[in-house]
Order: sequence, then C-alpha cells, then structure tokens
Amino acid sequence: MAILLLLNQVDPTILETHLKSLPSCPEVRTYPDVGNSEDIECVVVWKHDKGVLNDFPNLKLIASHGAGVENILSDPSLPEGVPITRFVDHTLSDQMAEYVLAGILNHRLHLTYYREQQAAAHWRCRDIVKGRNVTILGMGELGSTTARLLIQNGYTVSGWSRSEKDIHNVKSYYGDDQLIPSVADADYVICLLPLTPATNGILNIKLFNAMKKGAYLINVGRGDHLNENDLMDALAGEQLSGALLDVFSTEPLPKDHPFWRHPKIHITPHISSPTDKAQLARQIMENYHRMKDGKPLKNEVDPERSY
Amino acid sequence: MAILLLLNQVDPTILETHLKSLPSCPEVRTYPDVGNSEDIECVVVWKHDKGVLNDFPNLKLIASHGAGVENILSDPSLPEGVPITRFVDHTLSDQMAEYVLAGILNHRLHLTYYREQQAAAHWRCRDIVKGRNVTILGMGELGSTTARLLIQNGYTVSGWSRSEKDIHNVKSYYGDDQLIPSVADADYVICLLPLTPATNGILNIKLFNAMKKGAYLINVGRGDHLNENDLMDALAGEQLSGALLDVFSTEPLPKDHPFWRHPKIHITPHISSPTDKAQLARQIMENYHRMKDGKPLKNEVDPERSY
Repeated sequence: MAILLLLNQVDPTILETHLKSLPSCPEVRTYPDVGNSEDIECVVVWKHDKGVLNDFPNLKLIASHGAGVENILSDPSLPEGVPITRFVDHTLSDQMAEYVLAGILNHRLHLTYYREQQAAAHWRCRDIVKGRNVTILGMGELGSTTARLLIQNGYTVSGWSRSEKDIHNVKSYYGDDQLIPSVADADYVICLLPLTPATNGILNIKLFNAMKKGAYLINVGRGDHLNENDLMDALAGEQLSGALLDVFSTEPLPKDHPFWRHPKIHITPHISSPTDKAQLARQIMENYHRMKDGKPLKNEVDPERSY
Repeated sequence: MAILLLLNQVDPTILETHLKSLPSCPEVRTYPDVGNSEDIECVVVWKHDKGVLNDFPNLKLIASHGAGVENILSDPSLPEGVPITRFVDHTLSDQMAEYVLAGILNHRLHLTYYREQQAAAHWRCRDIVKGRNVTILGMGELGSTTARLLIQNGYTVSGWSRSEKDIHNVKSYYGDDQLIPSVADADYVICLLPLTPATNGILNIKLFNAMKKGAYLINVGRGDHLNENDLMDALAGEQLSGALLDVFSTEPLPKDHPFWRHPKIHITPHISSPTDKAQLARQIMENYHRMKDGKPLKNEVDPERSY
C-alpha cells in the first residue's frame, strides 16, 4: 500500500520528507514513478492532469495539497465515491489575516505611494484614507480569522457567505440576493471565497458599481474570482481607487499582462498563504490512518458545495 | 488681552478658526501683526525665531503647537518663569501606533519590495520576515499606545525610557545603563523619544551594533535622534536590514540628500503625526482659562526633563 504525490507546480521533496518522518508512514511515491498502480490507496494532488485519477483501482482517499479543491472537482473523470479532503491550516488563517491588514494599512497610509515618490525626491503628503468599513466575501476559517483581526484593529466588518453566519460583531449577509447590499458601505472589499461555479467571476463590474466610489479591492481568493477587464474598467472610471491582488488566473502572471504596469494595481506573487508542509503532512497522515480504520475523515469536502 | 499665534512652517488660519469658535475666546492675533505687545498673555508657538518671546512683558503661557518642545527650550532667551505646555493628542497616539504597525507589516511581508518588482514584471517570492520582537525607545503616551497595539497584534514588546515603567506585558528597561541591553533581542527598534540633549543622536552606530544583525529601524521621533552617517554605515554593512524614516533634521528633506535614493531607506514625509487642530484649539483654550483662574495647567512641560 502506498501514498502517491501527484503535484504540479509544487516541489514534492519537502512534503515527502515530512511524511516519511511521521510514525506508521506507508511507502511514498512521486508521480510519474507510480510503480504498481494497484498499490495506491491515497493521492495527494495539486493541479493534476485530468483523467489520471482513474488509473488507481484501489484509491480510497484524495487529499488536496491546499485549501482549494476546485481543480479536483472540475475533473470530469473524477472517480466516484472516493472522499476528498482539503488542507486546513490555522497558521495559514493568521498569515492571510495579517496580509489583509497589511494591505489595508498600506493603502490607508500610502506607504507604497511614498516609496514610489522617493526616486524623484518628492516630499508630498497625502491625507490618510479615512474609511474603516470592510466587507469580507467568504466567511469560512480564513474569512472569520481575518474579520477578528480587523475588528481588533478598529475596523467595522461585514461578511457575505452562502449561508447565514453568527460571528461576534460581524454583520452577516448571505445568499445571492444579499451580495450586492453587502458591499454598499464598504471602503475595502476582501475576497476570501472558495472558487466554485457560483463564485467564478464574482468580482465583476456589477459588484464594483455597487460599492462606494473609491473603494479598494483585495483579492486573496483565486484568480478566477476576478473579471480582469471589469477591474481595469472600474479603475479607469475611478469607481475603485485601487486593488491589491495576490492570486491570478495564470500563475506566475504572464510577463506581458497589463496588470504588471498598472499604477493602481499592486501585485504580490501568491504570498498570502504559504503552505506549512509539516502541518500538511500531519493532516494527510491522520486522514490516511482514519481511512484505514474506517473512521470519519477530517476536513472532508462536500462536492455539492464545492468546498 | 490676546493670544498670539507665532507659527513657522504651519498655516495659522485653521487653528485661528477653531480657537474663535470656542466660548470665551479672547482676541487672536497672528505674528507679525502683534499690535500692542503688552496685550499678549499667551503665545502658541512652533519653530519660533529665537529671542522674539522677550517682546511680551505680560506673557503668562507658552503653548507648543505640537508634542515636541525642543525648539522652545533651546531658545537661550526664553523668558524665565513662564509655564510651557505641550499638545497631547490621543488620536495622535493611535495614528502613530498605526503608522508603526503598518511599517512593521510592510517590512515583514515585503509589500514595497513587490511593488518595486512590478515595473520589471518580476514574479519572485520572498520569505516572510519572521522575528516579532520590538523595542520601543520612549515609553510616554505615544510609546505606550504603540506598545499596546503591537502586543495586541502578536508582537513581543520591550520599552526603554528615562525611568522605570510598569506597562502590562512590556519589559521595562530604563536609564543610560540599560539602553544597549534593551535593543539586543529586537527585530524592530522604534524611536518615539522626545528630543532632548540626552537623546540627540541616540540612534548611532553603537546602538545599531548592539542590535540583532538584520534588525529594522523605524524613526518617528525627531530627525536629530538619528546619526545619518551611522545609519548609512549600518545599512552598508547589513547590520541593519532597512529603515523607515518619517522625520528628518531638515524638513522637507533636501532634494540632494542621499536618503532619497537609498534602496534600504523608506521615506515618508512626516505623516505619522498630523495635528488635529480642533483638539489643539480646545487644549490651548482650556489652559488659557486655567492660567487666568490660577489653576494648575494641563500637560505642562518640566524644563529639567525637557518634556
């Protein structure tokens, strides 16, 4: 019996080392060195090639390398009935929340702007950006941790999610009908949604036009949440004052992409959620043993909800 | 009887409007339109020309326009026995604390670095800067507010001040002997000291060499706290990883100053402490009436301590 690492755009060696350091770890193989495909009971996947998961007749667990599972669920040949788990990292939530706070403070105090002025030796003050209303789209683990940090730092937070949430001091908006109202008073809109067919392209001109003029967008969800042309239009019309983007439909962002040189778009290279491989290895191994023992899995994905 | 506004490098009109909107405000005059100098009982000063305060035989109150009073106390012809008050702004403390947190987060997450990479379309990740130990030099109103905000955001804070302080969760270092030990474990050193003969030039190579290699400096005190050449040396030798400077010996910073083009120095144009003129007007007027009524003044400066 063996675990197979099936990772694209990710170096498997660190995870392999962490897995092997854990007690009762079975054999770990790395794709494409599958060996006898009947041995594979568990695959750890990231951006796998569609169809490949059907090669393993004894597959009993698909563990996502990250929090997102949209790439797994969009595989039309996904083996039926095999449970999928995702990585839930509490450190990750803290890091994500810190990234969002840093992005807001950077915009409020114009720190990046001042750095840009420096080359020209310009001594020019800008007024602090006053508004403190934040709407977080997506109120799962990441969204609620971010909400707590922002509230603690004096922000007024609303959240939008699929179903109603009861989080202290966060006004809950939910369901399709309340998406537009949820952003009406926001000075900052933060996207922390999972990527599902329902949220693909949710950051579009209709949403931007529903925001307060001059609102600021932070996307730390997935690149495909954003309609890129709509963002360019909203910035050109000054409906949005700027955007901080950490995720993109294609990563790395292609060299000729117009975002790179846009004066109101601040790009970071997917840094808001670095994977803690040691913690990932522990979660994979725990679910592997739960699967072997017939116990309920942790962080199992509901394919109906897509997360 | 009249109040005289004696302000250099500051527009007096907004303060004048706020003062006149308050009940029982006496006549307000603006230098150099002094009128009969015997009428002047109170002067509001900022960077005044030395000697001019001797022109007012009935002067009973010198109110500083800002938190700092070094320019007043360094006037060799300062009239003896006239009490000096300074502006203490609680909003200011919050803004200062927010500036410091923003500066730390910006360094931790390299937000400015990523913005600089953007023009060249570089997709390059840097590891987050891990250390969370902060030493604050100066533990008055500004220092203690900043300490509270940083602790709340997960930082470990030490403070250095003239005398011992008892602030929850802040390790107190005090007196000349403990200055060097206070910075030994710091990943960030924040200067929030008043400028006095004892603190002039306190940010020097001896202090930098006592810090952990790679520490980051934030100066929001006064420009004269910093020995500029020593900072350049400490950055060149990588003893310090960088500096965020909001205050300078000469402001605006001269166009030909080497700090402007230094890759490891981030300059902001004295934005960490914008004066709230309405609150300043209320404090001046309250002390004016206290002076008239023979009551103790608020925020009176002790010339022995220089603040």
